[in-house]
Amino acid sequence: MNQDYIVPNVWSIIEEGFDKEKVKSSESLFSIGNGAMGQRANFEEHYSGHTFQGSYIAGVYYPDKTRVGWWKNGYPEYFAKVINAPSWIGIDVMVNGEALDLNTCKKVAKYKRELNMQEGWYKRSFTATLPNGQEIEVHVTRFLSLDIDEVGAIQYNVKALSGDMEVSFSPYVDSGITNEDTNWDDKFWNTTKVSFDGQLGFIEAHTMKTNFATCTFMESKLFHNGKAVALNSEASIEENKVGFNYKVSIKKGESATLHKFGGYTVSRNHEASQLVNAAKSVLEKVTTMGFDALLDKQKEAWAKIWEMSDITIDGDIKAQQGIRFNIFQLNQTYLGKDSRLNIGPKGFTGEKYGGSTYWDTEAYCIPFYMATKDQSVARSLLKYRYNHLEKAIENAKKLGFSNGAALYPMVTMNGEECHNEWEITFEEIHRNGAIAFAIYNYFRFTGDYSYIPEMGLEVLIGISRFWQQRASFSKPKNKYVILGVTGPNEYENNVNNNWYTNYLAKWCINYTLEQLGKVKDGYSDDYKRIIGMTKLTDKETEAWKKVADNMYFPFSEELDIYLQQDGFLDKELITVANLDRSQRPINQKWSWDRILRSPYIKQADTLQGFYLFEDHFTLEELEKHFDFYEPFTVHESSLSPCVHSIQAAKLDRMEQAYTFYLRTSRLDLDDYNKEVEEGLHITSMAGTWMSIVEGFGGMRVVDDKLSFTPRIPKQWKAYSFKVNFRNRILKVKVTEAGTSFDLEGTDEMSIRVNGKRVVLKAGETVSA
Amino acid sequence: MNQDYIVPNVWSIIEEGFDKEKVKSSESLFSIGNGAMGQRANFEEHYSGHTFQGSYIAGVYYPDKTRVGWWKNGYPEYFAKVINAPSWIGIDVMVNGEALDLNTCKKVAKYKRELNMQEGWYKRSFTATLPNGQEIEVHVTRFLSLDIDEVGAIQYNVKALSGDMEVSFSPYVDSGITNEDTNWDDKFWNTTKVSFDGQLGFIEAHTMKTNFATCTFMESKLFHNGKAVALNSEASIEENKVGFNYKVSIKKGESATLHKFGGYTVSRNHEASQLVNAAKSVLEKVTTMGFDALLDKQKEAWAKIWEMSDITIDGDIKAQQGIRFNIFQLNQTYLGKDSRLNIGPKGFTGEKYGGSTYWDTEAYCIPFYMATKDQSVARSLLKYRYNHLEKAIENAKKLGFSNGAALYPMVTMNGEECHNEWEITFEEIHRNGAIAFAIYNYFRFTGDYSYIPEMGLEVLIGISRFWQQRASFSKPKNKYVILGVTGPNEYENNVNNNWYTNYLAKWCINYTLEQLGKVKDGYSDDYKRIIGMTKLTDKETEAWKKVADNMYFPFSEELDIYLQQDGFLDKELITVANLDRSQRPINQKWSWDRILRSPYIKQADTLQGFYLFEDHFTLEELEKHFDFYEPFTVHESSLSPCVHSIQAAKLDRMEQAYTFYLRTSRLDLDDYNKEVEEGLHITSMAGTWMSIVEGFGGMRVVDDKLSFTPRIPKQWKAYSFKVNFRNRILKVKVTEAGTSFDLEGTDEMSIRVNGKRVVLKAGETVSA
Repeated sequence: MNQDYIVPNVWSIIEEGFDKEKVKSSESLFSIGNGAMGQRANFEEHYSGHTFQGSYIAGVYYPDKTRVGWWKNGYPEYFAKVINAPSWIGIDVMVNGEALDLNTCKKVAKYKRELNMQEGWYKRSFTATLPNGQEIEVHVTRFLSLDIDEVGAIQYNVKALSGDMEVSFSPYVDSGITNEDTNWDDKFWNTTKVSFDGQLGFIEAHTMKTNFATCTFMESKLFHNGKAVALNSEASIEENKVGFNYKVSIKKGESATLHKFGGYTVSRNHEASQLVNAAKSVLEKVTTMGFDALLDKQKEAWAKIWEMSDITIDGDIKAQQGIRFNIFQLNQTYLGKDSRLNIGPKGFTGEKYGGSTYWDTEAYCIPFYMATKDQSVARSLLKYRYNHLEKAIENAKKLGFSNGAALYPMVTMNGEECHNEWEITFEEIHRNGAIAFAIYNYFRFTGDYSYIPEMGLEVLIGISRFWQQRASFSKPKNKYVILGVTGPNEYENNVNNNWYTNYLAKWCINYTLEQLGKVKDGYSDDYKRIIGMTKLTDKETEAWKKVADNMYFPFSEELDIYLQQDGFLDKELITVANLDRSQRPINQKWSWDRILRSPYIKQADTLQGFYLFEDHFTLEELEKHFDFYEPFTVHESSLSPCVHSIQAAKLDRMEQAYTFYLRTSRLDLDDYNKEVEEGLHITSMAGTWMSIVEGFGGMRVVDDKLSFTPRIPKQWKAYSFKVNFRNRILKVKVTEAGTSFDLEGTDEMSIRVNGKRVVLKAGETVSA
Repeated sequence: MNQDYIVPNVWSIIEEGFDKEKVKSSESLFSIGNGAMGQRANFEEHYSGHTFQGSYIAGVYYPDKTRVGWWKNGYPEYFAKVINAPSWIGIDVMVNGEALDLNTCKKVAKYKRELNMQEGWYKRSFTATLPNGQEIEVHVTRFLSLDIDEVGAIQYNVKALSGDMEVSFSPYVDSGITNEDTNWDDKFWNTTKVSFDGQLGFIEAHTMKTNFATCTFMESKLFHNGKAVALNSEASIEENKVGFNYKVSIKKGESATLHKFGGYTVSRNHEASQLVNAAKSVLEKVTTMGFDALLDKQKEAWAKIWEMSDITIDGDIKAQQGIRFNIFQLNQTYLGKDSRLNIGPKGFTGEKYGGSTYWDTEAYCIPFYMATKDQSVARSLLKYRYNHLEKAIENAKKLGFSNGAALYPMVTMNGEECHNEWEITFEEIHRNGAIAFAIYNYFRFTGDYSYIPEMGLEVLIGISRFWQQRASFSKPKNKYVILGVTGPNEYENNVNNNWYTNYLAKWCINYTLEQLGKVKDGYSDDYKRIIGMTKLTDKETEAWKKVADNMYFPFSEELDIYLQQDGFLDKELITVANLDRSQRPINQKWSWDRILRSPYIKQADTLQGFYLFEDHFTLEELEKHFDFYEPFTVHESSLSPCVHSIQAAKLDRMEQAYTFYLRTSRLDLDDYNKEVEEGLHITSMAGTWMSIVEGFGGMRVVDDKLSFTPRIPKQWKAYSFKVNFRNRILKVKVTEAGTSFDLEGTDEMSIRVNGKRVVLKAGETVSA
């Protein structure tokens, strides 16, 4: 835990005081991104202390050869690594020939970092006494432009405090970087050209194997007391580096300021031969605008994002800071502009986990993007999976499935599986269900059916084929069973009849059959095309139906609950409350053997099913299952507290819901799991949004209409959020006294509040 | 399969004709060893074709850093690699300045390899036409001395066929070798000194991390037409190599012969500073004796081994060759002289699997060594585990067990676990039971109880503590269950209540309780010492008893059989006969996922329990279980056919028993699994011995007496074997007509034959 380290503030993340031990954590927390690139909060000037360098380019990865103890058939060949890209931020700073390095300064004072989430910039300021006794005051502001998303900008300001001095700035770009996380110490980057043109520097480098070509570029402007200084430094060229050196003599009290613009042009978006030219045109654009104008654009862009996606919380600064941090990071990671991209679990803040796409996207992120962006964004995310259907079929084939059965990967960059533990890759197949559910959820929320005949039905057919083949008939049970799976609770592996998985499988098949009927009736051309392509026969769908109709669900008559898996009750059922605190987190304290045999649940599993299909179960059933399973849940997955917060709120257990909310929203800010230095938990941040909107706000779609059951934690005076429901923007504000609704635009809209119908008119605030 | 490649011969393994594709396989098949060192059948002269170089020193290993996909708590730090040691065999040969290299010769004819198992030597002969047109005839004989086990000898004879010629021999030792199998391309050896003394060459090198110091040494003698030639070559010294060059001019028809003596002195047996001196004294001894005298000693030593351990089979040359190959390899691998050593699954024939000690030793090898060697050998193997008890307790502690519970490692060199798949290391815990069973078996066979109070009881207490802690109480079953295990059938992982494991656990506890009583009554000093040390209380043993008395065993009322594990009947039970042949071996054709969900059994599991505890079950029960499980068994473990051969023989299914026998005895000779080039399957060779003695011979110990139920496959006229039972040597010969028994010595002995008591008198042949 890192509690009370980050200064509470409603719009900013603030660190005060320089603590070398916190540098790596803060590098994660103060990360910036613009959907196309990202940058950990590494210092621009050289730092000789512990640091985790990270610059990332969306969609640029390396297929790192898999490492396993003992190879087994079907194992993926590689693990896609998010790779540390060439750095564009470096600016070495010297004062009278002495390097500024916060690790070696005689004194560092007034140290402050601020990540201004409202405006989308990051600033660091401090005073430093260098080993040579010179004292300076430094202010550095940095942002990655949302407006021109190939570029970032830095304003590096040095003020002379101790006397007259010569300040030297050496801005550079550098491709001599490495990954913290590699399997075989492979070289990820090959630098092909280091060049310059006047005061512009370029490094052309491509990734090994995947061959993404990139140009990392920069240009700087120098100012003396705010007045531009002409530059004509000679470039210094090294094997993996190009830099310039700019000196300026300033008097005590005066300032020297460098504006550095840099970033990447990438072969994903340009002809590989045109990367330098593309970089030049970006630089021309931004240097013409200048730092301040570019920053103004940034503020405008973020204002627009916040306009739609902000959630306000009154009376609880930490809760407010938490939710905004979550929303801010999600928007830094993915903006929905590019259907080749997805939402990596660490976004642009670290290397861990690799790959960019997990089931997190469908199960946690889509609701957030659906409600706070244009619906094209969610459609883009669904299309991503459609584009990977062929690879999902190949993946299933590798494991022995046939006839177009599709198993989507657990982790992927390009549709290929790239995780490498058999108990996850081969067995955590419920991910397939999340993808089908997202199709259902997308239509339910947006009302846009067109995705299904155009793309979704093919995905659903592949998935249903998989489930039918994956299930097998048990003679003793006289039912179809699904053997050898890992459910969402990864603390049980290779179990039989994970209730959540079986439930999803049955639902997937039935939903697919239903859509087949709908598409046949309403979109006969699509239907013909799809049937022609998939060669789906009635005989096959009958086989599906047989599996769905006869699916087995482990159930305890005595407890009147569904069992997480066949053997759950054979375990020693000691609740978490009766587990010695010193034993937690069990994933750090216990052997894998002990964890597997224990009843402890990493994240919602049966309760995840109750979340997805809540209308299939009564409140009493939910309560029974919550009361049984939550006491065994250790919430050691970042994806756990949000679902539990929603379920607790539904059960009117507001204290518990609030505790879960704080845990999910401040997971990284307060470093609950002591690992924030590795990067942030991006995907679970969408779960935080759900825990307010769906949990406290009780928002659902019922019969094509929005429905709310608002509740408010007693710690809050009020909270508000906005949703875009079928292109109508609704603002919801909840106070203890009641809830008010504001519909934007000129339309009217009927909703349900606490079960009662309410008609909203645009421009009128309606309280309910 | 490699069927019909090796020439059938009752005493020799013979290859005829040079086939570059077979070089690596033959390097395995013609391997030699003497218990202290081993050598693959690599050529002495340079060979530029595909080869797998391997020289091995018993007990010298490297702790190669473990490689896993995702680290989990409790994983072992390293995987002990059997390492390729510096080579002592190299002799580069030149004829008129042209190198002899079988890969580049114009012609190679009359190529023959012979491994003479009766006398313990390996010979290679051929004629070769070199690129320069010179034709020579070559005979090379090599052996590793059983008598002086630090040394090997080579006689390299070149005869001039095409005319007069100059033959040059360059014998050398070389530490510039690598492993085929490394995890991180670590350097395993550090060469510290390359030296010579006259015509003697030495390389001192030590292993990294484990720091085993070794001296690899050599000395040569040269002969012209059998007459010694004085040598005074200058040594050539390289970083990792020392060599000499000896030239001799011979006329057409004449021969040049080099005798090379070489080997290792190792810090396991000498002061590290004295290795060169020790080497010199070995060389002095053997060069004084000369090659022929040393070879004579070798023949004597092997004659002694065969005198006791030979099995003869009349009327079936391939079966005869198979069993002798198995017995020969076992004796090459382990002779029982050194209780720090054990029997590696690949012996000295390859690197795969790593480590030296698996449960193979207790479950398969001990019966062979018990019956064909002095009983001190088996005791030595038991003592090996006693010496590792503390490490086994540490190992269990790592996994969360306490109070002296011991979990022996799955794979080890020094008592530490060094395998690294959780489903094996953490879950294949039945190995603990095999170790307890070996203690029982040792006493049953040898009658030597002393091991139990002296050492065995402590081992049994550690093991019983483990089982009691590892079992947990299932409320629904109202029994103790053992969750999350892998049984001997490694094609099922993380199952609940593997019958074999549960059965062993219960038996272990009961056996330990019984021994506690016996030691208390008969060895009160030992009892006091042990209780004092282990702090075992009545309360604890009551807890053990409760577990043993209430152990759960999955059972099908309908089928009237014990189930391999809780979920076995939920699988789709399609027999192997109904599986398309193209799908086998499934471990090469199927994904791990598919294998795990299939009913296919890698090796005896429930039937392994019926083998160990046959007197607990009726013949009818065995038959029922055999008929149920064997049809699902794919025998993809080398340890499978032998147990099935024994069980089939017991059920009087001699055709099946014979087929299994051939498969186990000629597994490597006929390369059933297409992998012999990686090395031989040493430990399963002891299973071959069991399949004759226990299977066909029906040998058991019943009430302290040997018992036989002899059967003979119809393909055989007769077979015979010898056993050392409690220091009395009995020879058994079985023909279709009946069985005869010869007791050596001066004693008499009562046995049972087909259930009837027979009294044998030494010196008299008794037929029954």
